[in-house]
Amino acid sequence: MTVRVGVIGAGWIGQEHIRRLTETVTGAQVTAVTDIDPTRAEEAAARAGARVLPDGAAVVAADDVDAVLVTSWGPTHAEHVLNAIAAAKPVFCEKPLATTAEDCLRIVEAERAHGRRLVQVGFMRRYDAGYRQMKQVIDSGRIGEPLVVHCAHRNPTVPESYHTDMAALDSAVHEIDVLRWLLDDEIVSAQVVVPRSTSKRFAHLKDPQIMLFETAKGVRIDLEVFVNCQYGYDIQCETVGEEGLVRLPDPAAVGVRTAGQHNTAVLTDWVGRFVDAFDTEFREWIAEVAVGNEPSGPSAWDGYAATVISNATVEARKTGRIVTTDMKPRPAFYGGTE
Amino acid sequence: MTVRVGVIGAGWIGQEHIRRLTETVTGAQVTAVTDIDPTRAEEAAARAGARVLPDGAAVVAADDVDAVLVTSWGPTHAEHVLNAIAAAKPVFCEKPLATTAEDCLRIVEAERAHGRRLVQVGFMRRYDAGYRQMKQVIDSGRIGEPLVVHCAHRNPTVPESYHTDMAALDSAVHEIDVLRWLLDDEIVSAQVVVPRSTSKRFAHLKDPQIMLFETAKGVRIDLEVFVNCQYGYDIQCETVGEEGLVRLPDPAAVGVRTAGQHNTAVLTDWVGRFVDAFDTEFREWIAEVAVGNEPSGPSAWDGYAATVISNATVEARKTGRIVTTDMKPRPAFYGGTE
Amino acid sequence: MTVRVGVIGAGWIGQEHIRRLTETVTGAQVTAVTDIDPTRAEEAAARAGARVLPDGAAVVAADDVDAVLVTSWGPTHAEHVLNAIAAAKPVFCEKPLATTAEDCLRIVEAERAHGRRLVQVGFMRRYDAGYRQMKQVIDSGRIGEPLVVHCAHRNPTVPESYHTDMAALDSAVHEIDVLRWLLDDEIVSAQVVVPRSTSKRFAHLKDPQIMLFETAKGVRIDLEVFVNCQYGYDIQCETVGEEGLVRLPDPAAVGVRTAGQHNTAVLTDWVGRFVDAFDTEFREWIAEVAVGNEPSGPSAWDGYAATVISNATVEARKTGRIVTTDMKPRPAFYGGTE
Amino acid sequence: MTVRVGVIGAGWIGQEHIRRLTETVTGAQVTAVTDIDPTRAEEAAARAGARVLPDGAAVVAADDVDAVLVTSWGPTHAEHVLNAIAAAKPVFCEKPLATTAEDCLRIVEAERAHGRRLVQVGFMRRYDAGYRQMKQVIDSGRIGEPLVVHCAHRNPTVPESYHTDMAALDSAVHEIDVLRWLLDDEIVSAQVVVPRSTSKRFAHLKDPQIMLFETAKGVRIDLEVFVNCQYGYDIQCETVGEEGLVRLPDPAAVGVRTAGQHNTAVLTDWVGRFVDAFDTEFREWIAEVAVGNEPSGPSAWDGYAATVISNATVEARKTGRIVTTDMKPRPAFYGGTE
Repeated sequence: MTVRVGVIGAGWIGQEHIRRLTETVTGAQVTAVTDIDPTRAEEAAARAGARVLPDGAAVVAADDVDAVLVTSWGPTHAEHVLNAIAAAKPVFCEKPLATTAEDCLRIVEAERAHGRRLVQVGFMRRYDAGYRQMKQVIDSGRIGEPLVVHCAHRNPTVPESYHTDMAALDSAVHEIDVLRWLLDDEIVSAQVVVPRSTSKRFAHLKDPQIMLFETAKGVRIDLEVFVNCQYGYDIQCETVGEEGLVRLPDPAAVGVRTAGQHNTAVLTDWVGRFVDAFDTEFREWIAEVAVGNEPSGPSAWDGYAATVISNATVEARKTGRIVTTDMKPRPAFYGGTE
Repeated sequence: MTVRVGVIGAGWIGQEHIRRLTETVTGAQVTAVTDIDPTRAEEAAARAGARVLPDGAAVVAADDVDAVLVTSWGPTHAEHVLNAIAAAKPVFCEKPLATTAEDCLRIVEAERAHGRRLVQVGFMRRYDAGYRQMKQVIDSGRIGEPLVVHCAHRNPTVPESYHTDMAALDSAVHEIDVLRWLLDDEIVSAQVVVPRSTSKRFAHLKDPQIMLFETAKGVRIDLEVFVNCQYGYDIQCETVGEEGLVRLPDPAAVGVRTAGQHNTAVLTDWVGRFVDAFDTEFREWIAEVAVGNEPSGPSAWDGYAATVISNATVEARKTGRIVTTDMKPRPAFYGGTE
Repeated sequence: MTVRVGVIGAGWIGQEHIRRLTETVTGAQVTAVTDIDPTRAEEAAARAGARVLPDGAAVVAADDVDAVLVTSWGPTHAEHVLNAIAAAKPVFCEKPLATTAEDCLRIVEAERAHGRRLVQVGFMRRYDAGYRQMKQVIDSGRIGEPLVVHCAHRNPTVPESYHTDMAALDSAVHEIDVLRWLLDDEIVSAQVVVPRSTSKRFAHLKDPQIMLFETAKGVRIDLEVFVNCQYGYDIQCETVGEEGLVRLPDPAAVGVRTAGQHNTAVLTDWVGRFVDAFDTEFREWIAEVAVGNEPSGPSAWDGYAATVISNATVEARKTGRIVTTDMKPRPAFYGGTE
Repeated sequence: MTVRVGVIGAGWIGQEHIRRLTETVTGAQVTAVTDIDPTRAEEAAARAGARVLPDGAAVVAADDVDAVLVTSWGPTHAEHVLNAIAAAKPVFCEKPLATTAEDCLRIVEAERAHGRRLVQVGFMRRYDAGYRQMKQVIDSGRIGEPLVVHCAHRNPTVPESYHTDMAALDSAVHEIDVLRWLLDDEIVSAQVVVPRSTSKRFAHLKDPQIMLFETAKGVRIDLEVFVNCQYGYDIQCETVGEEGLVRLPDPAAVGVRTAGQHNTAVLTDWVGRFVDAFDTEFREWIAEVAVGNEPSGPSAWDGYAATVISNATVEARKTGRIVTTDMKPRPAFYGGTE
């Protein structure tokens, strides 16, 4: 059974996912598209053989939409997700689930009231082969109990519109989610250390930043976010446990020896780094929706946690203090004890 | 437009490709299946939502079959491919194209007479990301003119039915094809050197073997085929040119440090090594068939060359001599000068 | 001209350096040895063909001692080094130069008063090939201005006598010295973050620890010290600059593939990791002393800085606060501006 | 006790070893030097504080010469080594032991007649840390019985005086010796395959060459010798056994990431690659001579074998045939059964 997807938001990432659902993932069909820019909506719809609808509410309500994909501007996410829950339709929401903790909690409450999981949040790193191998190693006990995690998140450059808070909200949020999942643990505090900034980019931007997280079990995480590192797109992660460590591999690339150097290419683009993860993410989501299963990916609760923690990270940087996250207890509905 | 594929042969590789066309590659639908074992045909057809037809001729002739996939027993390939050409239908034939040079030439002649390429042979390594990177490096001139290639083709074990000739016919044939393509060159002679055989497997089997090839341009290739190497499935390739070299990467895998060792997993299965290449191979083939393009993958001529060269390699081992391949000149139809 | 060395302290490291001066480094001869344990002194002296003297003062004063090696208990270092300066003899002092900032400053003042450098402190990492390559890369400008440094210092286990302060005083002190040298910069503050401790060792020990340093130029350093990591002796260092990064290599070791794994050995012993650095350190020191040059290695000032910073690190852990080092301005005598 | 060494031949390698014995290896002193060029002899002698003697015979005969180092022109080696045996003095002879099998056998016979090993041949790879690790792995049985060895021996360039035979006689001879030792096996035949030659160097030179060796136990070895590979000095060796493989590491070097590339330096100089091996070789030789032990390094028999096999390799290339070596049975004196 083909899953008919309605897409709210046809910007860059929306178009990318429409293409993915149309050309790469079997079992899905994009049937409806909306965007605040009608021309963009029409172009995206035409490529997918879908029709254009006037707004998100219309997409959610449409008879030929089995599941909703939210790829609109972040502050609008909550409204569309809540609509989808009200319509009892599965909804895949690109991160963030919502920009405030309050809005995230409204979604969480609505989903609990519905009584069945409908929401998946687009944290794709959980679908990356390297992180999955790392989780297998951690879960196997080979390295013992995790104690420390070292991470780096580096982009070659970002545009001028990227501002200092985005290092936490847009960049580190991926590590925040994947580390909670890798460690099966919760982040309870954040601190940010600000090195001298690179002179290669905009004066307004604090870049790089070192973020320090503590988990409920006492694991300490350090994360370098450096979004103008110039040399490439480079994601590093090493988990150190009581008996050993596990480290994310670099992407496979041919080795070339010329002129006294051994060279391997470093990626310069996050799309190339995580394209397989995106494909797997949607392939698994569509397969679950097709048979009526609850989604197994990042939940509304994970979306809430990521928003709380990334907001706390921004506050930590602004205040120069260690900020304890103010997260509600995890409900039993989401695997917690409340 | 969905490409309707008829499948001739529902053994292991046939089932694998049916699953691929059904679940992984968009734009394709398996509509008809046949197999000499009717039960196997029915099971495979049922999973794909296809119907069973009595034989290959019926599959080729069926109105709801736009393109033919030949995954039957090697000696039957030629007949099915010739049928497809006669019916002017695109045909994807798993290797070998045919088991004899004569049969391959019959296909080549039939396709030339038809006047348009219809045949693609299933040499999937050309679709592997590592080999593609290697070809880019070679074609870019970074390492200068190729002079020497070192290869290894290692399987952990093979079943008792695997016999000595298969090291050339079934294993080395992949390197034979991919090296012709990588180097844009023709293999003109073969020699086989036989080390002491491993004591870990069957007494009847000469394993490992070292195959030595010479190309028209004078490149020398050495290839270790070792199909009971025990430790893993391991494909190595290094091309040495006048100014540098390029080497295939090992598959990316997390690094684990425990107990005085840094470990990375070695694959133990060729499916895992080349699953992405298979997916890409079929994705590109279906995309070309869908729009009516000639296939861009390995041609009938490449299938002929691979059969001639792998047969010469068997003869070289049996005689202990350097065997010059007896290949026809390449026709202009296949990019040659005749 | 053979340099005649008198050794004060014949414990483990003293014996190791006596052996080094006797068997590995040309141009040196150990002529006198003292130790608080006369038996140990005699054994060490016998192996080197040297005589035993009653105490450090006698060693410094001996006519057949051209240069002094101090490898006694840390709290006694200052006295011996001051004696050597008073006698105008070159003195190599194992770290620490002295256990208090005050004693270090007395040495610094004595050397300045003497007017010529006599003191070298035994921070051997500056002589490691990997760190030297890293310094060349940084100094070349290839990676731009350094912004962030990530380090790890891991031992498989330590004995029960190792206490929590030693993570800074004995372990991190090596990184403190080598980073000051690598970056040509001064460390101005320290913070310590304490993860949950490993359950594999002694309850009294906070292990691992994450130390955070800031330099005068604004570089931020994170250093994991984990002295019971179980898996091996592992030193990591990565310097991230405005245009790229440079990373210390792992020691070269054969790769072994067996049973689905690629393995390389991780060292389990710091001696093996730095034996070449120790040899180079003493070879260069002896060569300089032989021709009457001032020593070019870590100076008394470096010894003072290392003591101040490692003491600040202990205080930072005990107080949970960011501790600003209280270092004097660097005198012109030691390359500073005062 | 200091070993007093007399040196016959003060060319490049002679000077290098004189410097090594003087500055790097303890327990040795160069006391006498001769060379066909008296100026060169005097300069070398002056640097070492040695005296000049008129010829090799005088060096061997000198009272203040305990051991002889032969680093003269290859064709003169036999005479000097025979003189040293006649004088019952330990002699270290740079490779080759002699340029003809006959001369090697004369030395072997003289040493047997003397009844005690005096001769060591300068094959330094046995002292390289990587090869030693490889031998440990092989001897441990971890990879099972060796079946195949793949090697590459690459220099960036060679001067015009280097001629085609030297690929076997000067370059491959190192692998010939080290493989005999690694495998504890004898090479019994040689074949040479000649790819198209690089256009980057001299028209007279066949470069690269692929040499194929067979051992008594049936191991097959392929060795690429490419002495104008342009990109660096690169030594590769991989031994494949019944249950796994072991591979020589690349020399440790910092990794640098800039501009979309991860780079590590490739050595461009064999001195840098094997300087530690040379040092260890001489350190061990001097230590054995000092206490009157027989040398434990490559023996006169190993020198004979290397000459026979490298000469067979030259013949194999010239004739295009597989040449069986015509080696005498190994005498019991050298660990054999005769």
